[in-house]
Amino acid sequence: MAVYVEEWTGSEQSIAEKAFHSAYEREITALTQEVKHRSHAIEQVEDIWRLHDFLSARRHQIDGKYDYNYEMLIFTFAGLLKDGWLSADDLEGLARDKLAKITSLSRM
Amino acid sequence: MAVYVEEWTGSEQSIAEKAFHSAYEREITALTQEVKHRSHAIEQVEDIWRLHDFLSARRHQIDGKYDYNYEMLIFTFAGLLKDGWLSADDLEGLARDKLAKITSLSRM
Repeated sequence: MAVYVEEWTGSEQSIAEKAFHSAYEREITALTQEVKHRSHAIEQVEDIWRLHDFLSARRHQIDGKYDYNYEMLIFTFAGLLKDGWLSADDLEGLARDKLAKITSLSRM
Repeated sequence: MAVYVEEWTGSEQSIAEKAFHSAYEREITALTQEVKHRSHAIEQVEDIWRLHDFLSARRHQIDGKYDYNYEMLIFTFAGLLKDGWLSADDLEGLARDKLAKITSLSRM
């Protein structure tokens, strides 16, 4: 596992941390808006329980997704790119082989 | 158990159903307001997860509490009275011994 850690240069680590943080912030901002929207629209008890189910699912997804470790970062970034929380611009400066892997995985 | 069911007259059953329904409506209305208030006040991700925890707890409580069966109704009403979702007025018309039990239990 140490081999993977060493593959990320200091400069790449900075870019990765920033990109990771940006994706998280964007997803949480979108989630916040969605929660406010759903709450505002509550009319009956089923709407409350649907909001609860929605939060259970989103919390589980987000907890699982935003685990910052270099062994998994290629896969994490591929998923974030696929879901639109990251753009190619956020990853600019990473080594070409990493970008190729991320882009390729994001299309699967 | 059949003995307990027979203890509630038709008139008492009507009063009980109406009271039960009123308590549920009041509690859900208050819950709706609380959810809207908490959602409106979301500023950071921890607020979202706190809302989720709050909903998990309230859903569990409400699911457990609003089980309409005559064997448990004295205890159910005592709890609702204690928590303020029912008033003595809602139970007017029930037999005196039931009211005494409900009131007594609600003070425990």
